[in-house]
Amino acid sequence: MKVISDADVRATLLAGAAVRVSRDALVDAYRGTLKAPPRTGIDVGSTELVFTVGGNASGTVGFRCYGLWPGHADQLVAVWDNKGSLRGVVVGTALGALRTGALGGAAVDALAKHDASVCAVIGSGTQSWAQLWAACSVRTFSEVRVSSPTPANRAKFAARARDELGLNAIDLADSVEAVRDADVVLVATKSARPVLPATAFAPGCHVNTIGPKLRGASELPPELASVAAIVASDSPAQAAAYGNPFFTGRKLAHLGGIIDGDLPGRISEGQITLFCSTGLAGTDVLLADHVMNELDLAG
Amino acid sequence: MKVISDADVRATLLAGAAVRVSRDALVDAYRGTLKAPPRTGIDVGSTELVFTVGGNASGTVGFRCYGLWPGHADQLVAVWDNKGSLRGVVVGTALGALRTGALGGAAVDALAKHDASVCAVIGSGTQSWAQLWAACSVRTFSEVRVSSPTPANRAKFAARARDELGLNAIDLADSVEAVRDADVVLVATKSARPVLPATAFAPGCHVNTIGPKLRGASELPPELASVAAIVASDSPAQAAAYGNPFFTGRKLAHLGGIIDGDLPGRISEGQITLFCSTGLAGTDVLLADHVMNELDLAG
Repeated sequence: MKVISDADVRATLLAGAAVRVSRDALVDAYRGTLKAPPRTGIDVGSTELVFTVGGNASGTVGFRCYGLWPGHADQLVAVWDNKGSLRGVVVGTALGALRTGALGGAAVDALAKHDASVCAVIGSGTQSWAQLWAACSVRTFSEVRVSSPTPANRAKFAARARDELGLNAIDLADSVEAVRDADVVLVATKSARPVLPATAFAPGCHVNTIGPKLRGASELPPELASVAAIVASDSPAQAAAYGNPFFTGRKLAHLGGIIDGDLPGRISEGQITLFCSTGLAGTDVLLADHVMNELDLAG
Repeated sequence: MKVISDADVRATLLAGAAVRVSRDALVDAYRGTLKAPPRTGIDVGSTELVFTVGGNASGTVGFRCYGLWPGHADQLVAVWDNKGSLRGVVVGTALGALRTGALGGAAVDALAKHDASVCAVIGSGTQSWAQLWAACSVRTFSEVRVSSPTPANRAKFAARARDELGLNAIDLADSVEAVRDADVVLVATKSARPVLPATAFAPGCHVNTIGPKLRGASELPPELASVAAIVASDSPAQAAAYGNPFFTGRKLAHLGGIIDGDLPGRISEGQITLFCSTGLAGTDVLLADHVMNELDLAG
C-alpha cells in the first residue's frame, strides 16, 4: 500500500503523461466506460466532506475526498485495483490542481490552433500554474504573458515559468494587453466579475476558464460565450449538477466527444473556442493510478 | 500521517476502550453532537463504493469507505483533525468488525442484567468474535457457549475464546441448547431465516442481532421482537434509511438515549431486551482516532 506525498506527485507526474491520462478519461467518460458521477458533499458538522468518485472499465476505482476547511487542508485520493486491493493513497493538495491542469491541457490540445504560439495566463495562483504546466506540453509557445493584480505575484509566476518550464515568459499589469492576439488564454482567478471584456479576445483564440463561471458570478463575460463557436466542458453532467447554471447560457459540448471525433471541433482559424472546467470526477483516481504505476516501474 | 494496518489495530485497540469510545459516540449521536448521516453508496461501474461519514463536536471528522467486491477487500478509514490535517488512514478489515463489536458491547453494557453470567454466541465468524470480544469486557461470564453449523468452526471459535479471552467456552451443535437460560445472546449469522424460535430465549436475556434483520429476511423471529420489553438500535435513522423495514415491526429506541438516561432501559430481571445493530456511522472514525491517540502515546 503506497502513501504518496505532494513531493512524490510533483516528481513523478509529467505534464504530457497527465494530459494523456486525462484525454483517455475524457473519451471514456463520453463513451460511458468511465463512471464518474457528480460530486457528493456530506455535512459532518464542523465541515463538509466532498467525494468525487470514479471507476473505469479495467476495474480501477477510487475517489478523492476533500473537506471545506479554510486554507490548504489535506486531500486524500484512494485507488483500488479490480480485485479490491487498495493500491495506495495520495495525501496533499498537489494532485487536485495538476488534475485540473491536465484536463485544461487536454482542452487546449483538442481546441486550440495547432500553431498556437502566444499564451496568456490570467491569474498567478496554483490553478494558473497547473494550467500553464499542462498547456505547454501540448503546444509550443514562443511567448507567455501572465497578468494578475499583485506585481510581486505575477513577476514570481513569470520567473518560475522561465526557470521550471523554460518558457519565454513576461508579466504584465494590463490583462487586456496580455491577451491581445493571444492564441491560448488560460483564466484562473477567484473573481466573480468578468476580469476581461469579450472584445479583448482575438479571433481564433482558445480560452480555458477555471474560476467562477456561474450566471451572474463569472470570471469571464457572457458575451464571450455568445461569440464562441464551441463551448465545451469536461463534464456537462457535473456542470448541470451545480446549483446554478453556467454563465455560458447554452448547451455545453462534451470535450471527450470532441476528442473522440464524434462531436465537431475547431474548423477554422478564426473561431473562438471556450473550455469551461468542471473537474471531471475520476480523473484524480486515474492520475493517482498512473503515479503508482510510475513508482512501481521506478522500483 | 499514520498508516495503520489490521495488525496495528488488533494490537492497539482494547475491548474496554473500544466500548467506551462507542458509548460516547452513541450518546453524542443521540444528543446530535455526532453527525453521522446514513451511508452513501456510489456506483463506479465494476463495483459500488460505500461511504459512512462522521464528525464530532471537537472537529474530528472522517469516513470509512468499502467497496462491494466479493471476498475480503481492503477498507479504508480516514481521520482529519479540526484544522483539516489528515491524521492518518486505517487500511484493512479489522476495524470494521471490531467497531460493530464495540457497539454491541455498549448495548450489552446498557441492557443486559448486571449479573449476567452465561453468554451464548450464535455464529462463529468474524462478527461473532468481535461481539464476544467486546461483550466480555463489560460483563463477567462464567460460561460461554458457541453454536454454528460446522463443527470445526465452532470448536475453533471456542478454543480461541479460551486462549485469547480466557473464557470458559464450549461449543454446541444445538443452538437451542446453547441459548437455554443464557443471559446474553449474541447472534451474528448470514441467515435470512430465523436460526432460533422465540421460545428458545429465557426471560431476562439480552440479545444482539448483527446479521440479516429485514422483514421477511431475518436471522431472528419477529415474535422475539414482539415479546421484548425494549428493542433498541445504535442508529434508528440508519435503520430507517434501509430499503426495507426491520423484522421488528416497531419503533426502535435509540441506544444512545438509553445510555444517556433519557430513554427507559431495563427495569426488571425478567425483561427480554433486543439490540438491532446497524453500525452507527462515525464510530469507525472515532475508533481510528482513538487508535491514533494510543499510537501517539506509545511514541
